[in-house]
Amino acid sequence: MSKVSPLVDSLIEAFQCLPGVGPKSAQRMALHLLERNKNAGLILANTLEAALENVEKCKECRIFTENDTCQICSNEKRNERLICVVESVSDVFAIEQSNQFNGHYFILHGHLSPIDDIGPDELALNNLFTKVKKGLVEEVILATGSTLEGETTSHFIFDNLKNVENLKLTKLARGVPLGGELEYVDRGTIMHALSDRQILKGDG
Amino acid sequence: MSKVSPLVDSLIEAFQCLPGVGPKSAQRMALHLLERNKNAGLILANTLEAALENVEKCKECRIFTENDTCQICSNEKRNERLICVVESVSDVFAIEQSNQFNGHYFILHGHLSPIDDIGPDELALNNLFTKVKKGLVEEVILATGSTLEGETTSHFIFDNLKNVENLKLTKLARGVPLGGELEYVDRGTIMHALSDRQILKGDG
Repeated sequence: MSKVSPLVDSLIEAFQCLPGVGPKSAQRMALHLLERNKNAGLILANTLEAALENVEKCKECRIFTENDTCQICSNEKRNERLICVVESVSDVFAIEQSNQFNGHYFILHGHLSPIDDIGPDELALNNLFTKVKKGLVEEVILATGSTLEGETTSHFIFDNLKNVENLKLTKLARGVPLGGELEYVDRGTIMHALSDRQILKGDG
Repeated sequence: MSKVSPLVDSLIEAFQCLPGVGPKSAQRMALHLLERNKNAGLILANTLEAALENVEKCKECRIFTENDTCQICSNEKRNERLICVVESVSDVFAIEQSNQFNGHYFILHGHLSPIDDIGPDELALNNLFTKVKKGLVEEVILATGSTLEGETTSHFIFDNLKNVENLKLTKLARGVPLGGELEYVDRGTIMHALSDRQILKGDG
């Protein structure tokens, strides 16, 4: 495209591996760092290299960590008998921000998808099942995405754990989001919000 | 924010040095590379480091290059007696894409801005003036931005070069952009488009 400098061209090309970054944004990023922010650029290059080389999945919950077990699994103040199953690390970030959850996680890094050859092994589900069947867990919260694949994955986990004694299995509440105006909420969500409506007074 | 892994946190922080990237996008970028695209991430880290260490300004036109003179200045098929003055390297990319220009460039890397302590020295304007006054240049196209600062910079260059003999000074045409519907074009542009209107028939 530019033919100005092969190295600058390669940099613009390389930035396009980032999600949501096309040729125009990549060009803007490359020129911004070269023109105005060389130091921050070097820090980014070094941090990125260090993270890619050192960050692995926690052997307990599969979250990212540079140690053997992550900060959440090794935090003794957290309840290890409560496990929340999520599809990705960004889900963990979202739940942690709510400050409402004090248990452990299990990250699937995806969902069941036979077309893409993603089965229970790819999601390391046996690690989860073994742990739960040892009787080390009181409750498993199924917090996969509200998509077809997410629900299928959730259902598969439910099927495999429903006969474990003294285990509670729950899923996240579905309903109208906070600040959501009813007219902009989709039909499926409204159906859930109606059928799971909460009693304010009376016995229903 | 996340406290999951210090290294992942640093990476999310580092990505925010990029223009238009806030905490959410930075998190998405970091997790995307860690979860799905480690190789591309390593290429990005290495290319970024190499570019920041090796890319300098061309000593002739101040465009980015890893050599002494850039590919445009060292291309003998281009007309070195025609110089287009622009504010930034992205302007060069835009003009090159039009395939309409076969001369050399001079990149200011900014515009005159007394408040920010940016004067003629910061823009290396003496390099341009010396070259032009040696009689090596036939035409200078003033292609700075159509902003107050851009126009001021353009005017300053014009003032310094207007007495050079046999030198042509031009600026880019202002008018309605291609594909622009009149109702969405701003007043100033319409004023320019009217006063610089082109004669189709008759002598006006």
